[in-house]
Amino acid sequence: MSTTAAAGFVAGGLASGIKPSGAPDLAIVATASGAPVIAAGVFTTNLVTAAPVQVSRAHLVNSRAAAVVCNSGNANAATGEPGRRDARRMCELTAAGLGIADLADVLVCSTGLIGIPMPMDALESGIPKLCAGLSSDGGTAAAEAIMTTDTVTKQAVEQAGVSGATVTIGGMAKGAAMLSPAMATMLAVITTDAAVEPGVLTRSLAGAVRSTFDCLIVDGSRSTNDTVLVLASGAAGNETLREARGPAFDAFTDALGTVCGSLAEMMARDAEGATKFVRVEVVGARSDADARTAARAVAGSQLVQCSLNGADPYWGRIISELGASGAYLDPERVDISYNDVTVCRDGVACAHDVAALAAAMAEHDITIHCDLRLAHGRATVLTTDLSHEYIDENRRTS
Amino acid sequence: MSTTAAAGFVAGGLASGIKPSGAPDLAIVATASGAPVIAAGVFTTNLVTAAPVQVSRAHLVNSRAAAVVCNSGNANAATGEPGRRDARRMCELTAAGLGIADLADVLVCSTGLIGIPMPMDALESGIPKLCAGLSSDGGTAAAEAIMTTDTVTKQAVEQAGVSGATVTIGGMAKGAAMLSPAMATMLAVITTDAAVEPGVLTRSLAGAVRSTFDCLIVDGSRSTNDTVLVLASGAAGNETLREARGPAFDAFTDALGTVCGSLAEMMARDAEGATKFVRVEVVGARSDADARTAARAVAGSQLVQCSLNGADPYWGRIISELGASGAYLDPERVDISYNDVTVCRDGVACAHDVAALAAAMAEHDITIHCDLRLAHGRATVLTTDLSHEYIDENRRTS
Repeated sequence: MSTTAAAGFVAGGLASGIKPSGAPDLAIVATASGAPVIAAGVFTTNLVTAAPVQVSRAHLVNSRAAAVVCNSGNANAATGEPGRRDARRMCELTAAGLGIADLADVLVCSTGLIGIPMPMDALESGIPKLCAGLSSDGGTAAAEAIMTTDTVTKQAVEQAGVSGATVTIGGMAKGAAMLSPAMATMLAVITTDAAVEPGVLTRSLAGAVRSTFDCLIVDGSRSTNDTVLVLASGAAGNETLREARGPAFDAFTDALGTVCGSLAEMMARDAEGATKFVRVEVVGARSDADARTAARAVAGSQLVQCSLNGADPYWGRIISELGASGAYLDPERVDISYNDVTVCRDGVACAHDVAALAAAMAEHDITIHCDLRLAHGRATVLTTDLSHEYIDENRRTS
Repeated sequence: MSTTAAAGFVAGGLASGIKPSGAPDLAIVATASGAPVIAAGVFTTNLVTAAPVQVSRAHLVNSRAAAVVCNSGNANAATGEPGRRDARRMCELTAAGLGIADLADVLVCSTGLIGIPMPMDALESGIPKLCAGLSSDGGTAAAEAIMTTDTVTKQAVEQAGVSGATVTIGGMAKGAAMLSPAMATMLAVITTDAAVEPGVLTRSLAGAVRSTFDCLIVDGSRSTNDTVLVLASGAAGNETLREARGPAFDAFTDALGTVCGSLAEMMARDAEGATKFVRVEVVGARSDADARTAARAVAGSQLVQCSLNGADPYWGRIISELGASGAYLDPERVDISYNDVTVCRDGVACAHDVAALAAAMAEHDITIHCDLRLAHGRATVLTTDLSHEYIDENRRTS
């Protein structure tokens, strides 16, 4: 269901011919009426932004959108002015196909290889065809069409009571590498039927992203195309959210965070070549920001990821990464455990049940818990191990 | 020759039994007379510092040393107060063995696994035995004894005319992983017969390290034990360097930089599992600092390293890392080449000789040249590719 779970949205996907494999590569999520609704977005902080990021950012100044057109198989990044022209043409074709009067009400996302011109022939014929076939149960087809090296679709739906009505939030995402959001990561398109003012939606999205997509690091590379978009139709009939605080805002943001968190977890679980799903929890830090800095350093460490690949409880690399992270710590207060088996206490090795530790390390899901024992700052960052298969997927683009 | 090339130094190495393999694991470099000489050091910026780093830092407040005792096979890191006691005991044993009156005139370095108590029995018998066997041609034996996963010794010697005399600088280093010095990296011990004041030696070392060890990144992990030490005997008879500027200082610092640069290059060439030796040159940046930030981001990128492993000229990942690095750039001015074959001009793909590019990528030594075309900032950072073998060397510690 994903992007079509909330009332007022249609979606669809098809194979337009961008991918030589013939797999689906074109998706559209749109309002059922073709009329614009409130929208917000978060984009990559990379200075090298793909053409669709530049175009979507410009279009979003109105804080509204009627459709999002996404393609996989080509990132339309490092393509210069021709790339921007192509991205705008994708919006134009979508607006024409769906009867959207203002071109700026269409947003565009691309994902795939960098530096290659868009095969516009495929889109010239594919977009009109797709526009004719959108439906209220097309969410899964759209989620399939944005996959690149993903092996499964990423979709999530959550409901919440918000100021007198049940609102639904549904989303889709893609991403299995180049994952190190310091902002959005990858592509995610979320729809909701909540009624919410633009500034409030932006704040809510920023809050939801901070503890979810921003807490995912697979390989430390922040992509040129990272985009998270949310469209809010208002069809749920709740009293419009006009303030970025209070119980209704919190309920909505929590639900949005749950959708984002589910999609982020799905991305880590489907990361290229991963054999482990890993949560790095840092608690007891001087601040939440310090905890996040420390957790990202551990999660993003190639050497820690190698140890995880070998199911090796080599916590020395973890304390070393904590110390190098930039977060403040007292090396001789740090405790570290793997799935509740404590291996380091007060910064040094401690006695532990060797069989229990071996069993913990053999699990697919590993939680590395680091207690800095300084204050109450905490953060959790998701990651994976580093495997031969990751290298194999990334050593040749063709 | 390395640490015994300069006049006034002796060295040696042996297998003390720290390494289960029976390989050499203990080295000492000392003044031939046992008297202290001027010394300087640079240490890791990791907050989690190994016990030997803490002890050597404390001992170096006098800016002098008579000996450096180094072991491989155990990092003596994350070992708490017992670890510091062990590191001090290593200095004590060395002082006793060499007739050095002041314990603080002995420096200590360790490298190997983190979090494991030092096997002091091996050192209690090994250090006295080694002290009895130091010689003026023991540099290579010392260099062998500090190796961990290194496959070759790293030694370098350089001479320079400094204020009326020929001075010699020789050094040894180890390091094949956990290489991301934002400061010193790994272990390096350098000796010289130059006469130089302590503050001037410190400045010279800092300058030499900045463009050499600090410009090496293999896996992004800054270790707990990084240490570079230099001892200056004054035996060359040059007029003592008393100022950190002028032609004599520059000649000395250039020669010291040549030794450090050679050792850094040897480390990259011997990095775990590496199949490529890579120079990432960034020119045209707003400043040298910006160039270094950008070059480090490209060099440290797991995805760039995967492409290099596959000999794949996927420059899209390079421009993406430049953009995410934090360095300023205009995405549509960037030029990128591999071994002089330009593949990206003005931030987009450009026509190139496909056969020449394939030949360039097949080379063992690859130079990635990135011109930001903004100003005159430049930096070169050394790195390698990322291979299956790197993972294999790091997935299990035993």
